[in-house]
Amino acid sequence: MSLPHPPADQITLPNVLAVLGDATRLAIVGHLARNEGVPLNCGKFLELGSKTNLSYHFAKLREAGITRTEVVGTSRLITLRRDDLERRFPGLLDSVIAAANDFPLPSADGLRD
Amino acid sequence: MSLPHPPADQITLPNVLAVLGDATRLAIVGHLARNEGVPLNCGKFLELGSKTNLSYHFAKLREAGITRTEVVGTSRLITLRRDDLERRFPGLLDSVIAAANDFPLPSADGLRD
Repeated sequence: MSLPHPPADQITLPNVLAVLGDATRLAIVGHLARNEGVPLNCGKFLELGSKTNLSYHFAKLREAGITRTEVVGTSRLITLRRDDLERRFPGLLDSVIAAANDFPLPSADGLRD
Repeated sequence: MSLPHPPADQITLPNVLAVLGDATRLAIVGHLARNEGVPLNCGKFLELGSKTNLSYHFAKLREAGITRTEVVGTSRLITLRRDDLERRFPGLLDSVIAAANDFPLPSADGLRD
């Protein structure tokens, strides 16, 4: 089973910004950025919200083209689509991640790595 | 009469991103950026939408701390809060503006300068 992802050329700026405009999703993106190269499963984010709530946020991030979710057995492994985003919107992701690190995010301190 | 604006330290990243996540507001910000240093009145944006619709978008941009609206007689003059945004979120506005220029925006070609 695999989940749908937009091709890179269908990632749009208004949609990416709208989806990033949420404190929980910024916390997820910041956590993915700090662990780049390591796909994280949903369980790593449980301090940011309930499973149902997180599933909603992961779907929004995936549908906007910000993250990739791979289904491996019963796990979902999540990575940032950094290359696609950088090609489409140079510098945007880095400036968002840098700003997100200065922003008090909900329960982000307690995230397990 | 003057309209309320958030102080720079109350401009938040999730809110700025959420408000920028709209094609019409990106077109407004792009047009302001191309005319920087020149306050523009609302009439310069009429090809982007109805007056009522634009008033709504200008209020959202002002309330998020992205733009400053000065009331001068019967005009409202709008500028980007570039310095405040740059101090809070370095590089963000420039990367958004650069990406917005590549993005097909609603009726933006017809904007009158």
